[in-house]
Amino acid sequence: MESIIIYVPIIMALIGLVFMAVKRSWVLKQDAGDGRMKEISDYIYEGALAFLKAEYKLLTYFVIGASIALAAVSFIVPTTHILIVVAFVFGAFFSALAGNMGMKIATKTNVRTTQAARTSLPQALKVSFGGGTVMGLGVAGLAVLGLTTAFILLFQYFMNGTWSSTEDMTIVLETLAGFSLGAESIALFARVGGGIYTKAADVGADLVGKVEAGIPEDDPRNPATIADNVGDNVGDVAGMGADLFGSYVATVLAAMVLGNYVIKDMGGAIDDAFGGIGPILLPMTIAGFGILFSIIGTMLVKINSNDAKEKQVQGALNVGNWVSIALTLIASYVLVTYMLPETMKMEFFGEGLKDISSIRVFYATVIGLVVGGVISSITEYYTGLGTKPVLAIVQKSSTGAGTNVIAGLATGMISTFPTVLVFAAAIWSSYALAGFYGVALAASAMMATTAMQLAIDAFGPIADNAGGIAEMSEQDPIVRERTDILDSVGNTTAATGKGFAIASAALTSLALFAAYVTFTGIDGINIFKAPVLAMLFVGGMIPVVFSALAMNSVGKAAMDMVYEVRRQFKEIPGIMEGTAKPDYAKCVDISTKAALREMMLPGILTIGFPIAIVLLGKLVYGSDNQLIAEMLGGYMAGVTVSGVLWAIFQNNAGGAWDNAKKSFEAGVEINGEMTYKGSEAHKAAVTGDTVGDPFKDTSGPSMNILIKLTCLIGLVIAPILGGHEIETGVAKKEVKVEMLSESEDVAQAIVSYTTLKDGKELKEETTFRGTREEVRAQLEAFEKTTVIGDDVNIKVVIDKVEIEK
Amino acid sequence: MESIIIYVPIIMALIGLVFMAVKRSWVLKQDAGDGRMKEISDYIYEGALAFLKAEYKLLTYFVIGASIALAAVSFIVPTTHILIVVAFVFGAFFSALAGNMGMKIATKTNVRTTQAARTSLPQALKVSFGGGTVMGLGVAGLAVLGLTTAFILLFQYFMNGTWSSTEDMTIVLETLAGFSLGAESIALFARVGGGIYTKAADVGADLVGKVEAGIPEDDPRNPATIADNVGDNVGDVAGMGADLFGSYVATVLAAMVLGNYVIKDMGGAIDDAFGGIGPILLPMTIAGFGILFSIIGTMLVKINSNDAKEKQVQGALNVGNWVSIALTLIASYVLVTYMLPETMKMEFFGEGLKDISSIRVFYATVIGLVVGGVISSITEYYTGLGTKPVLAIVQKSSTGAGTNVIAGLATGMISTFPTVLVFAAAIWSSYALAGFYGVALAASAMMATTAMQLAIDAFGPIADNAGGIAEMSEQDPIVRERTDILDSVGNTTAATGKGFAIASAALTSLALFAAYVTFTGIDGINIFKAPVLAMLFVGGMIPVVFSALAMNSVGKAAMDMVYEVRRQFKEIPGIMEGTAKPDYAKCVDISTKAALREMMLPGILTIGFPIAIVLLGKLVYGSDNQLIAEMLGGYMAGVTVSGVLWAIFQNNAGGAWDNAKKSFEAGVEINGEMTYKGSEAHKAAVTGDTVGDPFKDTSGPSMNILIKLTCLIGLVIAPILGGHEIETGVAKKEVKVEMLSESEDVAQAIVSYTTLKDGKELKEETTFRGTREEVRAQLEAFEKTTVIGDDVNIKVVIDKVEIEK
Repeated sequence: MESIIIYVPIIMALIGLVFMAVKRSWVLKQDAGDGRMKEISDYIYEGALAFLKAEYKLLTYFVIGASIALAAVSFIVPTTHILIVVAFVFGAFFSALAGNMGMKIATKTNVRTTQAARTSLPQALKVSFGGGTVMGLGVAGLAVLGLTTAFILLFQYFMNGTWSSTEDMTIVLETLAGFSLGAESIALFARVGGGIYTKAADVGADLVGKVEAGIPEDDPRNPATIADNVGDNVGDVAGMGADLFGSYVATVLAAMVLGNYVIKDMGGAIDDAFGGIGPILLPMTIAGFGILFSIIGTMLVKINSNDAKEKQVQGALNVGNWVSIALTLIASYVLVTYMLPETMKMEFFGEGLKDISSIRVFYATVIGLVVGGVISSITEYYTGLGTKPVLAIVQKSSTGAGTNVIAGLATGMISTFPTVLVFAAAIWSSYALAGFYGVALAASAMMATTAMQLAIDAFGPIADNAGGIAEMSEQDPIVRERTDILDSVGNTTAATGKGFAIASAALTSLALFAAYVTFTGIDGINIFKAPVLAMLFVGGMIPVVFSALAMNSVGKAAMDMVYEVRRQFKEIPGIMEGTAKPDYAKCVDISTKAALREMMLPGILTIGFPIAIVLLGKLVYGSDNQLIAEMLGGYMAGVTVSGVLWAIFQNNAGGAWDNAKKSFEAGVEINGEMTYKGSEAHKAAVTGDTVGDPFKDTSGPSMNILIKLTCLIGLVIAPILGGHEIETGVAKKEVKVEMLSESEDVAQAIVSYTTLKDGKELKEETTFRGTREEVRAQLEAFEKTTVIGDDVNIKVVIDKVEIEK
Repeated sequence: MESIIIYVPIIMALIGLVFMAVKRSWVLKQDAGDGRMKEISDYIYEGALAFLKAEYKLLTYFVIGASIALAAVSFIVPTTHILIVVAFVFGAFFSALAGNMGMKIATKTNVRTTQAARTSLPQALKVSFGGGTVMGLGVAGLAVLGLTTAFILLFQYFMNGTWSSTEDMTIVLETLAGFSLGAESIALFARVGGGIYTKAADVGADLVGKVEAGIPEDDPRNPATIADNVGDNVGDVAGMGADLFGSYVATVLAAMVLGNYVIKDMGGAIDDAFGGIGPILLPMTIAGFGILFSIIGTMLVKINSNDAKEKQVQGALNVGNWVSIALTLIASYVLVTYMLPETMKMEFFGEGLKDISSIRVFYATVIGLVVGGVISSITEYYTGLGTKPVLAIVQKSSTGAGTNVIAGLATGMISTFPTVLVFAAAIWSSYALAGFYGVALAASAMMATTAMQLAIDAFGPIADNAGGIAEMSEQDPIVRERTDILDSVGNTTAATGKGFAIASAALTSLALFAAYVTFTGIDGINIFKAPVLAMLFVGGMIPVVFSALAMNSVGKAAMDMVYEVRRQFKEIPGIMEGTAKPDYAKCVDISTKAALREMMLPGILTIGFPIAIVLLGKLVYGSDNQLIAEMLGGYMAGVTVSGVLWAIFQNNAGGAWDNAKKSFEAGVEINGEMTYKGSEAHKAAVTGDTVGDPFKDTSGPSMNILIKLTCLIGLVIAPILGGHEIETGVAKKEVKVEMLSESEDVAQAIVSYTTLKDGKELKEETTFRGTREEVRAQLEAFEKTTVIGDDVNIKVVIDKVEIEK
């Protein structure tokens, strides 16, 4: 029975997808409202599809280009297999598919939520959260299905489905890394492009519509209003979905890589009921069960009273969330004790092999689940309505925009303090418990309920859109009131969701970082070496520049939009009177084009820099791959540390400004006076929010992708920089083959080579005798793993064997 | 002759101080103007003195507390000598003395510059730059004098003025580190306190005076105007002076430490004409000659035409600056080839010993001089009037404060790109040329002309003050016009000076970082170890939180000032009519108290965190000092990388906003229309400048001190974490003494201990026989360096010897 556990994640994923399909058809069967509503919803749907179509076209070129580059690498580097290209395309495809599904359902659910809100709040929640559930399960289901299937196929292909050695499994996992790379590449463009799209449309719509023309938000007379609503889907739904899809896959992959090294530390093979790969299967299995528990969790999200307020809605979401987390915790305990050897040996850096009982791995998963929650709470504290930091920003608004901006910046900056301390404690403690495998499993446990997290995250923008449609189609105020309750809760979940996304991205990157070090076989990353230190600096700079590029992109794209909206107001008579319809499609088109154009430079920066560092290293240090690997590792660490900081800073500053501005809607007390919308203080708060918009919706969330993708690129480059020989402590230096006999029947080959053992070079020689064909065969066999005394596995890669005469 | 070169830096320093004294008496002899001018100047002088007095009082407590802590450490840790306390007090005293001198002359020169400006511009430049020269030479002279004297005394005390071994010299230099720590501690409070003071006064004066009361800047009716002018001296003069004093001393110290290890790599002793310590003396000697060349440089700064504009003034400063740099370059060549062995052996990490010719050290100094210039130019590009980035911010002001703020933030962020790349290239190349000794000498060469740099920097605030006095004493417009020319040039030099300060702080920190690694004797800092990685994260967070605290402090202090100014306007009748005098002293007092109060928390953060990390490490890992040393190293690296980034970001964003606002004074073209002061766009630019003020004058410049002080604290802690035994490759593990005889006359002690050699543990035993007194003496001797075969020096520290019976 145990040997089929490899298929369990697939079964769970399929259950998730089936449940998703059922939910999807239920949502689609809901009433989509009357003509006007349907019309607006169709505009949004088409706008979103137009963006997706244009994006996918561009991404197709990118995938083709990247595939050719990967293929070239796999031809040059003997340790990289061509199948990585297939895995890459597969990963990119699955990620795009998940994004596509999510966005489609979100844009279909919005109008149905509006319609449901006409009857009751519980129904509106049911529909909007139903749409979110479809999105969440789609993403998680496809991620687990894709990754597990790819793994099983590669495991069959390279190892015939049976454990042979850590080295062979390394090849499987290195190839599987292509899947993750594909997924994360799509995520980069989805997140950055989506972020630019949504803010360009938002700022453009506001600047001309609200400020210049004086019409309210979501007014159908505003040509950019559809683009604005499309943006919510493109940025908050598809972008967040792609981000978490990428984290999910990368986390599980990294945990599998580190599981492989646990087996290595235990002597190269373990005897368990799971084909000897229990530690590798565990993260996938936890992910699979997480889908199941997410389904259970989503079922619990409901309210009964039509008079419910934000608190009850938030409560319903919390119940679902905590139940799924609690179930995951229990399952983790069972799975960890069931699937892992009771006691494992793990190599601790500088401390040697240690005996680690499996229960310690469970404790690490507890840390992961706790950290996810704590970081979300910290985010909530710094950005929530009515919290002390946000009220402080409100107070500072009374002395003008300058002091408001300073207070917001300072709040974002201060918020790094508890977040980073918690995060550092998590790294340290989960490592102390079970090494980097513990860190990776902490991340895996946190990510296990991704489906539930995404359902909660995606429901926000759906409710936001539903409100927009209610406004545009001029519904009863009660409808907007109900969608506003959902939207308000959605804003809170969006903030905590961002905390969760950072925490998961950071732990994922660390796990990838650890996987990178084991893949390259380096001793570690010593920042006392000047080139490594220099790269740590360069890496630290990248997130800062990336953020600036993203912010500037929003500015440029928003300007394009401003000019277009102004043009339409001027050239199409009757818009303001409501007698002529604005050209929505043109605005959608501008946002689409701007997003795609502007995401190029950050993309090049992200992908180009790691490659440039390796090329530079090769140029300066030639074949000293170890040093180059350390340089790249230093760069990765710099990007991760700085990226996490800038993500926290930007997300929280942006969130705090946003809610400081929103506080004025209900009125706030400043220096003893109640102050409302339209006051000078409110205007100052609006300025702060304008600054915060690209922070929290474009550059901030992009940091997650930046750090994960950087570490993934490093992981894919890893085999080029050293790879397998070094992992076994032995490196081939040169191979010389001599044929000593001229006759075809009696051939003799002497293979002389240099091995590296414990840092010392040894010259070795092996002789093969037989017929020419036999010698050829022997040489081929020799090419694979050969035992050369002292229990040392040596893998000699013979690039070319020329047997003369 | 060569053996007296150890005294050369002292001679140079004395020449500098004599020249300073002459210049000082010349400045003081200048006409200090008429009654009204003198009165205002006296207010500023007294305000500055009041701040200094209050600050020194507080610092006295701090120095006493820190001294007690250091003394306690030196009693507990046998490798730390009590003299470090003396060095610490000495360093703190010299730094405070330099600050005191600089501030006094600056506040005396301002009014004389105003008076000189009544006659001609050349004379005004001569006087104001004369004041700057006094400040620069005072700081540099005292730094070299203090450090060299302390070194000679310690060298005499510990080694009788003769080379014995690297280990002994390490004790000298570890003790000398106390001098640097003292200087940098004072710098922390001077920079942070000064930064808070100046901005609190500035913002407070502007908010009530300019905005509420509608009176111009520097109007004598504004109660905060004197505090504002005092602030320029406290922040820009004393703060910058203390910052560079600290950098100067720390750089030379770090280079000396690394020079000591060059000698070690060369076999533990070299035979040169400088008592075998040429590589240690070199950085001090370069610093000494730098003073001489700075004097020559300052003599060249003059203009002849009364009709000169900014360009001619800037040109005159440039001539002086470049001549002093060129002379330093030539001297570096001569000194390097003269004082260093023609070929040195240096240990390169992971590459083993390499032969390095002395000319490569010279190339490293060239890199230092070039990098200082290039980073200043980059700063100028991103922040200068009329440059592309600044004009872009001006354009963005037309769409409101929000877009202006975003553009300013993005400019600051983007500016990290070239700066960090240049900086990374500098680290890498100077290391490749001559190891970390090369990096340290690059920094030393850059810092050699500190006197000249400070003269240029200090002249700006003096001119600014002179302008204020001209305004307040209602001089002819021509006087203000002339001081404005000087002030405008001063703004440019302030920006490039900040670039120089960051570059020097960064290189200094790296050199200190390298010195730390060698002091602790660790193999390097491996960020693949989870606790080290966790500390890298924590370190990265500190500059962000520090900046936020500093920004919030400015906000709080400014509010105090606002309330006081409002109170005076209300309670003292006749201020606005000019019939009653405002209570300037009260405002000065508020700024002083606020600055001192608010600098506490950032100070505690800076000093407390490294100590907390060591304590935490001790708690978790007990005696695994190596790991704790690596953790602290990771923290230091995090602070440095993140601190450099945030320094560049904040300084350049602040500078760019400032000049974007200033652009409106002459008028700028926005969308084809000339736009001036008072326009909506200008108001938006003023908001940006408000945000930028604490960035560029408080939190940004504080980063320099933060990173240097963090690395210095690490350096002082270093001996606690391992220290000397490990440096020699041998570590004592345990010592057991047995007395085998009961009689007092026949005693026998067996000392069994474990040594660590090449990573292997060896059990060893030594027996001592004789009378009890003899055995005691032998044990004491054993405690010192003992040779135990294989050319291994072992230092056994016997914590307690109990000889029973």
